[in-house]
Amino acid sequence: MALTDQIKALTFDVFGTVVDWRSSIIRETRQLGAEKGIDIDWVAFTDRWRALYQPAMEKVRSGEWDWLRLDDLHRYNLDRLLDEFGIDGLDEIELHHLNRVWHRLDPWPDSVPGMRRLKSRYILASLSNGNVALIVNMARRAGIPWDVVLGAEVAGHYKPQPEAYLGAAELLDLEPRECLMVAAHNGDLRAAASCGFRTAFVARPTEYGPDQREDLQADPGVDLAASDMQDLARQLGC
Amino acid sequence: MALTDQIKALTFDVFGTVVDWRSSIIRETRQLGAEKGIDIDWVAFTDRWRALYQPAMEKVRSGEWDWLRLDDLHRYNLDRLLDEFGIDGLDEIELHHLNRVWHRLDPWPDSVPGMRRLKSRYILASLSNGNVALIVNMARRAGIPWDVVLGAEVAGHYKPQPEAYLGAAELLDLEPRECLMVAAHNGDLRAAASCGFRTAFVARPTEYGPDQREDLQADPGVDLAASDMQDLARQLGC
Repeated sequence: MALTDQIKALTFDVFGTVVDWRSSIIRETRQLGAEKGIDIDWVAFTDRWRALYQPAMEKVRSGEWDWLRLDDLHRYNLDRLLDEFGIDGLDEIELHHLNRVWHRLDPWPDSVPGMRRLKSRYILASLSNGNVALIVNMARRAGIPWDVVLGAEVAGHYKPQPEAYLGAAELLDLEPRECLMVAAHNGDLRAAASCGFRTAFVARPTEYGPDQREDLQADPGVDLAASDMQDLARQLGC
Repeated sequence: MALTDQIKALTFDVFGTVVDWRSSIIRETRQLGAEKGIDIDWVAFTDRWRALYQPAMEKVRSGEWDWLRLDDLHRYNLDRLLDEFGIDGLDEIELHHLNRVWHRLDPWPDSVPGMRRLKSRYILASLSNGNVALIVNMARRAGIPWDVVLGAEVAGHYKPQPEAYLGAAELLDLEPRECLMVAAHNGDLRAAASCGFRTAFVARPTEYGPDQREDLQADPGVDLAASDMQDLARQLGC
């Protein structure tokens, strides 16, 4: 049977794969800095915020911390950045709004049109470490056409823990082999594959900026490699 | 503050409120009966299947049974109906398909247009006892514009247990008072209200057929009472 006939649902990584978190956050924080007279390197700020992402999740994965949704991990890290970059002058309402910049990320230009095509044939599920409210608010703002929001918060486990993938397949009432994990990150795809998912790499060679060194191309083990979401739709017959 | 400004999300009961399960199942089972030469009273069959719904969930609520998704409870009850109505001649593939008639229910005519209007202003979440795959498949077939699929399976508790409502509010990262439960059933609304939700009754006076006796009108305690989903959209300023 062709891969296109075996697959029932596409499960998507979101940060980097569907949305361009880095450009979105740089743009919004630069504007905030200009308005509030905060003159720091917002590119460095953005990259540092993202660099603190995996270590914070690792505290949850390891059991050192009880479950915290990603919004709370982002806020924990943001508070640390305020010290590191010497930012003051933002009140609690402004900090809450800044932390929610992760709800206001812009999709890559091909994401929404490609996903609309993919939705005609497949169930589209988010399988992100972002919490449900974050993914829902992002989708409403950006027009991302999810059928269902799954992922870390629903499964109670952060990727790449297997429960995150297996929990999504179970809620979809599908076998893992009927699910195609779509991500710009080979590590995410390897973890999904080890749970029995099929895998599609979508290239996002500037996710981390012009000097990106990792995930420039698909590992040999993936089932599909696409140049963007429109190319994925074409390869999947949509 | 006006109710319309306090509310951020609408959480919907689905069976009876959004979709007309009874007409849909009668229509499809009558057709199946004609095709397979099974001559029984499909109206009685449909009403009996629905009558077994609450007792089966009660076995899960009470702890007598471990968690079972609604598809599995429907199948358990269907197997019982095969005996009661003396139905044979359906193979396993046909029975699986018949059990999934609950994934193929048609919306009331006002549901999708009303919900599209409501979505312009509010997050639309399913808060049904239907399992995730059921709600997703139903929505894809019928064009129901959910932002997010929540409810019993995600919360691990069947309504009217409070965990079902509170779990939805938590995943939405909202206070219960920011959620409006929309249902055609006063009991569902009372349970939601006891968790702090605001409540909207939508009248479905023929859900149980021409002789319906219950839930013909809203209890006095609800926040809103609407004649259908278009009327609800109008009352909520959409």
